[in-house]
Amino acid sequence: MPPEAAIRPAPSAPNLACDPALFTDLYELTMMQAYVEAGMAETATFSLFVRRLPKRRNYLLACGLDDVLSYLESLRFSEDSLEYLASLGQFSARFLAWLRDFRFTGDVYAVPEGTPVFANEPIVEITAPIAEAQLAETFVANQIHLQTMLASKAARVVAAARGRPVVDFGARRMHGTDAALKAARAFHIAGVAATSNVLAGRIYGLPVTGTMAHSFIQSHESEAEAFRAFVGIYPETVLLVDTYDTLRGVRRVCALARELGDGFRVRAVRLDSGDLAALSREARAILDEAGLGHVGIFASSSLDEDAIDALLRAEAPITGFGVGTKMGVSEDAPSLDIVYKLCTYAGLGRVKLSTGKPVLPGRKQVFRSEDGGRAAGDVIARADESLKGRPLLQLVMRGGQRTDAGRDTLDDARARAADELAKLPGALRGLAPTDPPYPVEVSARLRADQEDVIRRVRG
Amino acid sequence: MPPEAAIRPAPSAPNLACDPALFTDLYELTMMQAYVEAGMAETATFSLFVRRLPKRRNYLLACGLDDVLSYLESLRFSEDSLEYLASLGQFSARFLAWLRDFRFTGDVYAVPEGTPVFANEPIVEITAPIAEAQLAETFVANQIHLQTMLASKAARVVAAARGRPVVDFGARRMHGTDAALKAARAFHIAGVAATSNVLAGRIYGLPVTGTMAHSFIQSHESEAEAFRAFVGIYPETVLLVDTYDTLRGVRRVCALARELGDGFRVRAVRLDSGDLAALSREARAILDEAGLGHVGIFASSSLDEDAIDALLRAEAPITGFGVGTKMGVSEDAPSLDIVYKLCTYAGLGRVKLSTGKPVLPGRKQVFRSEDGGRAAGDVIARADESLKGRPLLQLVMRGGQRTDAGRDTLDDARARAADELAKLPGALRGLAPTDPPYPVEVSARLRADQEDVIRRVRG
Repeated sequence: MPPEAAIRPAPSAPNLACDPALFTDLYELTMMQAYVEAGMAETATFSLFVRRLPKRRNYLLACGLDDVLSYLESLRFSEDSLEYLASLGQFSARFLAWLRDFRFTGDVYAVPEGTPVFANEPIVEITAPIAEAQLAETFVANQIHLQTMLASKAARVVAAARGRPVVDFGARRMHGTDAALKAARAFHIAGVAATSNVLAGRIYGLPVTGTMAHSFIQSHESEAEAFRAFVGIYPETVLLVDTYDTLRGVRRVCALARELGDGFRVRAVRLDSGDLAALSREARAILDEAGLGHVGIFASSSLDEDAIDALLRAEAPITGFGVGTKMGVSEDAPSLDIVYKLCTYAGLGRVKLSTGKPVLPGRKQVFRSEDGGRAAGDVIARADESLKGRPLLQLVMRGGQRTDAGRDTLDDARARAADELAKLPGALRGLAPTDPPYPVEVSARLRADQEDVIRRVRG
Repeated sequence: MPPEAAIRPAPSAPNLACDPALFTDLYELTMMQAYVEAGMAETATFSLFVRRLPKRRNYLLACGLDDVLSYLESLRFSEDSLEYLASLGQFSARFLAWLRDFRFTGDVYAVPEGTPVFANEPIVEITAPIAEAQLAETFVANQIHLQTMLASKAARVVAAARGRPVVDFGARRMHGTDAALKAARAFHIAGVAATSNVLAGRIYGLPVTGTMAHSFIQSHESEAEAFRAFVGIYPETVLLVDTYDTLRGVRRVCALARELGDGFRVRAVRLDSGDLAALSREARAILDEAGLGHVGIFASSSLDEDAIDALLRAEAPITGFGVGTKMGVSEDAPSLDIVYKLCTYAGLGRVKLSTGKPVLPGRKQVFRSEDGGRAAGDVIARADESLKGRPLLQLVMRGGQRTDAGRDTLDDARARAADELAKLPGALRGLAPTDPPYPVEVSARLRADQEDVIRRVRG
């Protein structure tokens, strides 16, 4: 239906990582050409925010900024990309030459990773010549959306586990390889203990971990033989006991302990099916009776924050959780209503009036007030206001280069998340929706600006 | 909790595409080492299948095989990867040397991309020395899961649109860059007309398309000026009319048509908010009255198959749909219960008995019967059976090399999907769950094998 369609044969050996510059919606490029052709080079600010929180989220945990800054720093159009764009037949030689020299030269204000944020609060604001800021929309939204959504989900799972370690087992069912890698990173920020994803461990320096699969048990003549073989190589491993019959599996672990004597150093058994509350209690009793009180019980199998919460409310003696799909795809809220909206161009505030989709004009700041060490309420204000409370948005990139504030490490972000989450009102950290929600206001001056701009564009 | 945890600092400039061999769960590698150390090199078959369909899916559209075959063909451990694995302190020099020479040498049977499949039907079966087949689990499941889930969702959206073009607008909210690229590919197979994702267009040779964003309108002095500027460069474009007031926007398009006379070649207006049924009717009337009966109405804004179906049942005069998030994350079913299970090792069928998680032993085939050109039922059988109907699984890789059947093009897959979907009973192609579901049986011989193996492992 839309007209700018063009097809070109695929290259034979695609390198998916080759060209992040092309990871953009076509209209960003057609709009950029229109800006460039018209000489519209004035400064724009775009604001990235979530319009409303999913029903089962009392806050979001901001995440993904580091990838956004790396993208902006290295944004270039390769000759291959330019050739592809030329083949689409809608870009002028002049615009393609302009793209060849493209660099991102703007400023970025952002909420640091690991900070809780709420509806309508800017997470990232990009200020740059309009064509530069326009191009970034697709990638910036994609990464902040993914990582914020996943960190926010994981924070709930970690809270439900009440100090017991949560391990990410989700790689096989997350949405593609990029999601699985970024998830492991976001989960680390949210307090997850380790990941099974080896490449994520390699890239981000995360703790990697794992147990064993049913296939290992199945490939041996018997479960006992499989246990013996695995423990021979990995004495401190976790043994998966549910392949044939969970409680018989636990008894085989006890038999192995008798057989190995002091050489028995297995850390835990793993339950992966059935009624985890009942089985964990029975397994605990069997292990305790065999003098294996130090052997933990690790549980997995379709877990999420609700299942973990229910298990621990039922006092299931589980010492750690492997969590896969439901955390990995944020099953109950697999998307956020995130948008990237123009709010200033050429010195004037900009809004749209589309039904149900309001925009706050101009560069903004969020001030968070505390009361006795607890976050008590936020005010979204103009960037040039000085209000009570701590400003959340920081200058993380200036003129296309990261500032010191833009060089947070992953561990900084993890520590911040732990710290900031502890400051939220207790109810917000619970699983149930809070009513009323956390208070977020718009400052009087920003509201007045919005009304002025609405009057101006209504004409 | 599990013991094999190790941390190593992240490299400074991660290249995410560097090492697909490390895109695996740690336990695959620890199990491989155990197989290798024990000399367990016999042949295994692993079967990839979906245990049950999501409530709102009458079938799944198999997708993702091409990426699986590329991965298996090129699977190598780089020196960098081996060094990282060595740093984890749990792999022997002998095993790392074995990994250095690793190649996938196995056979793969698979259902071709674009084929509808049902619960428990193998989508891919990998037969190889057990360590080789074990390693592949994480990546193979990740890609088939993602692409099958997305193609299955898109097929519903395309069906709901009843021949009107559906365009993929989802890149900004899909789960990461890999998901957004693979989605565009999967959507193409499922019959989506085009994507806005430029990199996907580049890599897969897909039609790329787009309209304009609110920011373009907002950045101009007036909507009329923005329309004039965009049409000056892209005469056959689609104009977004809801930035300030949808029907005034439509009237401005009519005014532009009067102004440009024969030079007016705009193809459609785009509605992106509000009551799309009512607005499309009013827009149609305004356009028709202005003699613009040939100008289409393109709609977007939180669309999915249900919304599109409701609009078309209400006879909304919409000529094309832009669909983003809800299709892009498969919002109503953001994961499938996909598993990769050992079913043969060293010539013996293998199963597990875990509660609610049965496995069919041995290499298998699926026979699809037709009745008057309509798919009438499937039988899951032993690979060596010859039953009535068409066998769905084909040999796509032999000894680590693709066969001709493994060289399907994307257009082959798209044509197959159109063809095979047309053969499904009509009710299955509808949006409502069918009751009873499509009939899938297990052959008597396979059922007998399963019982034999269960008896054997129960001991």
